[in-house]
Amino acid sequence: MNGVRFNHLLGLEGMSREAITEILDSAEAFLEVLERPIPKVPSLRGVTIANLFFEPSTRTRISFELAEKRLSADVTNFSSSNSSLVKGETMLDTARNIEAMKVDVVVIRHFAQGAPHFLADRISASIINAGDGAHEHPTQALLDMLTLKHQIGALDGLKVLILGDIAHSRVARSNIWGLRTLGASVKVCGPLALMPREVEEMGVEITHDLNEALAWCDVVNVLRLQLERQQEGLIPSLRDYQRSFGLTRKRLEMAGGDKVIMHPGPMNRGVEIDSDVADGSGSVILRQVTYGVAVRMAVLYLISGGERIIE
Amino acid sequence: MNGVRFNHLLGLEGMSREAITEILDSAEAFLEVLERPIPKVPSLRGVTIANLFFEPSTRTRISFELAEKRLSADVTNFSSSNSSLVKGETMLDTARNIEAMKVDVVVIRHFAQGAPHFLADRISASIINAGDGAHEHPTQALLDMLTLKHQIGALDGLKVLILGDIAHSRVARSNIWGLRTLGASVKVCGPLALMPREVEEMGVEITHDLNEALAWCDVVNVLRLQLERQQEGLIPSLRDYQRSFGLTRKRLEMAGGDKVIMHPGPMNRGVEIDSDVADGSGSVILRQVTYGVAVRMAVLYLISGGERIIE
Amino acid sequence: MNGVRFNHLLGLEGMSREAITEILDSAEAFLEVLERPIPKVPSLRGVTIANLFFEPSTRTRISFELAEKRLSADVTNFSSSNSSLVKGETMLDTARNIEAMKVDVVVIRHFAQGAPHFLADRISASIINAGDGAHEHPTQALLDMLTLKHQIGALDGLKVLILGDIAHSRVARSNIWGLRTLGASVKVCGPLALMPREVEEMGVEITHDLNEALAWCDVVNVLRLQLERQQEGLIPSLRDYQRSFGLTRKRLEMAGGDKVIMHPGPMNRGVEIDSDVADGSGSVILRQVTYGVAVRMAVLYLISGGERIIE
Repeated sequence: MNGVRFNHLLGLEGMSREAITEILDSAEAFLEVLERPIPKVPSLRGVTIANLFFEPSTRTRISFELAEKRLSADVTNFSSSNSSLVKGETMLDTARNIEAMKVDVVVIRHFAQGAPHFLADRISASIINAGDGAHEHPTQALLDMLTLKHQIGALDGLKVLILGDIAHSRVARSNIWGLRTLGASVKVCGPLALMPREVEEMGVEITHDLNEALAWCDVVNVLRLQLERQQEGLIPSLRDYQRSFGLTRKRLEMAGGDKVIMHPGPMNRGVEIDSDVADGSGSVILRQVTYGVAVRMAVLYLISGGERIIE
Repeated sequence: MNGVRFNHLLGLEGMSREAITEILDSAEAFLEVLERPIPKVPSLRGVTIANLFFEPSTRTRISFELAEKRLSADVTNFSSSNSSLVKGETMLDTARNIEAMKVDVVVIRHFAQGAPHFLADRISASIINAGDGAHEHPTQALLDMLTLKHQIGALDGLKVLILGDIAHSRVARSNIWGLRTLGASVKVCGPLALMPREVEEMGVEITHDLNEALAWCDVVNVLRLQLERQQEGLIPSLRDYQRSFGLTRKRLEMAGGDKVIMHPGPMNRGVEIDSDVADGSGSVILRQVTYGVAVRMAVLYLISGGERIIE
Repeated sequence: MNGVRFNHLLGLEGMSREAITEILDSAEAFLEVLERPIPKVPSLRGVTIANLFFEPSTRTRISFELAEKRLSADVTNFSSSNSSLVKGETMLDTARNIEAMKVDVVVIRHFAQGAPHFLADRISASIINAGDGAHEHPTQALLDMLTLKHQIGALDGLKVLILGDIAHSRVARSNIWGLRTLGASVKVCGPLALMPREVEEMGVEITHDLNEALAWCDVVNVLRLQLERQQEGLIPSLRDYQRSFGLTRKRLEMAGGDKVIMHPGPMNRGVEIDSDVADGSGSVILRQVTYGVAVRMAVLYLISGGERIIE
C-alpha cells in the first residue's frame, strides 16, 4: 500500500482512478481482517476520531464507529438532530474546538452542502465527508464500487442504472463520479421532477422509461424515496411512484438477464423496491453493508498516514 | 465452565435448571472479577456488541455497557426513544444491517413483546433480551436469583412474594419462570386490575391481602408502579395504592420475621415502597445492581462461546 | 507528584494553593503526553468513569471523554437534557445505582447548585463537578489558570478582568476563588442587573465602566452572554449590551498594551466579543480548549490515586 496520499475525503468528484483503486485495494485487505476470529487491528491506536452528525443517522454512524473501533482508535460521538447549531455557536467554532482537543480525524455528516469542504480549508484535522446535503456521500459510493468489484470484477464497461430521486441524492452524485472514473457507463431513471438538469453534464444519460433502462443495464442501484417528496408535491402519490419506478420481480423478468440489485438503505419495501427483489437472488444489499465497514476502515487507515502495517 | 450451550437469551420460560445454574455459577466468578483492583478481563476482546434500545432505559443500558467493557468487547449503542422505527425501516432490516456489519451480539430492549424472539429466528447474531414489552426481562430475574442465592443460599423451598403491578411486569414474569424452575414458591399480590389471569397457570398463587402475603413469605420483590396506571384508570390514586399495597416498615413489623427486600428500580419512594424499607436492614436493592453487572458479564461470556478462560 | 490527596473536585472555594499548584503541575506533564505521536497512557486502565450530564453540554462532555479515554479508562455516558429526573427517580438513587455498578469516578454536570456536593457526601465514588448551576465549574477555572501560567508565568500580582454576566456564571465564581488563592487581583465588569452582591465579599472589585477596567487589566476573561437574559428583562437588548460591554478591537486599542484574551466558549461572536478580538493576536481561546483536556487528565489521574506512573 503506497503511492497516493490524501488528507481528506470530501467527495469523489475529481478523485483520480489511482486514488479510488488504492482505497478499494486497501478495503480488500480489511475485508480479510473482518473474517478473522478477532477482527481487530491496532493500526490506529492512540488516534482520536470525532463523529459529528448534524443530521440523524443510524447505519452510517454505526458503520463508521465499528470501523474506528476495529482499528483501535479512540472515538467520541456528537449528534445534533436539529438544524440549529449548539447554543448558537458556528460550526467552524465547534470544529476548531474539537481540533484544539487534538482530534486527528473528524467524520462529519451535515445537512448543508459543502460543510466538510468548508472545514477542511480551515482546520488541520483530517475530514471525512459522511454525507453533505444532496451533494456527496463518498464512502457510500466507494462501498458500492467495492461490492461491484467483488461481484463482477472489473468496472470498465459495466452498465449501471441509478433509479429514483436523483435530484436529492448524494449517493447518486458520488456514484456517478466514481463509476465514470473507473470506466463504467451510468444511466439515471426517475420522474422528471426528481431529475436534476446538471446530471447530463456529468456524462450520464437520463431516461424516464424504467423498462428500457432495465433492458440496458447490468446493475440497478435503487435509491431510497424520501417520503416527504410527496408532501412537497414532487410526486403525485407513493402508489403512482411505485407503478412507474418501483423495482418489481415482474419488471426484472421482463427485462431479462441477471442483474445485480443494490440499495443504500434504509429501504421502503413496497415503494421503490419490492421485498422479493430486495431479498432475491441478485440482491447484494446486505453485502454492501459489510463492505461499508471495510471501505471505512481503509479510508480511515489511509487518511491517518497508512504507514503502520495491518497486523 | 462447560455443559450447556446457548446462542440466545430470550427468556427464562422453558430454560432448564441446569442452564440457569450455569449462568449463576459463572456470575459468581465474575463477581470476584469485579472485586479486583482492575476489574477487567480480556475474554471478549474483538467481540462486537450492539445495544439496541427501542425504549428509554438508563440503568439496564449502563449495566450492560459496563459488563461489555469489562469483558473488553467493542460496544456500539443505538437508542430510539420514540416507537416509530428509524426512517420507516422495519426492525428486521435494522437488525439485518447490524448483523451484516459483523456484530456478534445484539442486546435488545423493545416495547413490543416477542421482538427479540423474532430477530433470533432471522439473524445469526446472538440475541439477548433486555426487556420486551410486558413479556420477559431475563437478566433482571437472573440477577434477582443470584442476589437471593448469595443472601440466603439454596432457592429450593424459598417463599418469594412479588408485589405490585403484575399485569404489566416483565420482571414478574421472568422471576416466576426462573424461581419456579429452581424450586422456589411464588405468590403474587396486587390490585385486581393489575393482576393477569394467566398467572395461576404459571403455578403461582394470587392474593390481594398484603398482610397475609407478608406473613407467608421470606422475600418481597416490590415492583415499580408505573405512574401512568392512574391515568389509565387502573388504580384509583397513588394514595389509595400506597395504603393497600405500599410496603411500609409498620406492615413488615406486623408480619414479623426478617424479610429480604428487593426492588428492580427505579423506585417511587413513598408509593410502592417506603424509604425506611428501601434503605433498611433487609434491603438488598443496591446489591441487586452490583450483581446485575456480574450476571450480564456471565451471560455475555457464555453466549459468546465461553471457551476463552477468564484471565 | 505527591503530597496533596483529594477524593473529589467539587469547587475551588477553599482549595489550597498547594493543591491547585499540584493539579497545574500534573497538567503540564499531561500536556507533554498530548504532544506524543500516541497521546495515550495506561494510567487509568480498568478504572470506570460515568459522565452524568443533567444539562446539555458538548465541549465539556467531549473534553472529559477524551481525557478519560487518553488515560485508558472505561467510559459510560448518560445525558438527560430535561430537568425532570429519570422516571421520577431521585438523583441520589441514580447515583447510588451507578456506584453499585462499581463506577470509580462520577463526572457530573447538574442544573442545581450543590448537586455534586450532595452526592459526594453520600456515595463512595469520586465526584468531579463539571458545572453545578451558577455555582462552580472548577475544571474550567483550572484550565484558565493553566493557560495563564503558560502564557505569562507566575499568577502572583496578575490583574484579571472577568467581563459579562457575573451573576449567572459558575466560570466567574471558580475563577475568582482560584485566581485569588494564587495571588492574582480580580475585577469584574458587567451590567448592574447581572452583578451579584456577594462578589465583593470574595475580595473582588466591581466596575461598570469597561474602558476603565480594560486600562487596568493584563487579562480579560470574556463570559458568554446567555441570550435568554434578554427575554428575562435583565438586559435591554443585545445591541445595547454589545455597545456597553462587548469586547471590540477599538476598545482594546484605546486601553493600550497587550492583553491576554480568554473566553470559555461557546462564543456569541459580535455580542460579547468581536471576531477580530476572538481570532486576534492576544487571544488564547483555542489554547484554553487544549489545556482543558490536560487539566482534566490531571484531575482524573490525581483523584484516582495518582500512584501509577505516567508511562
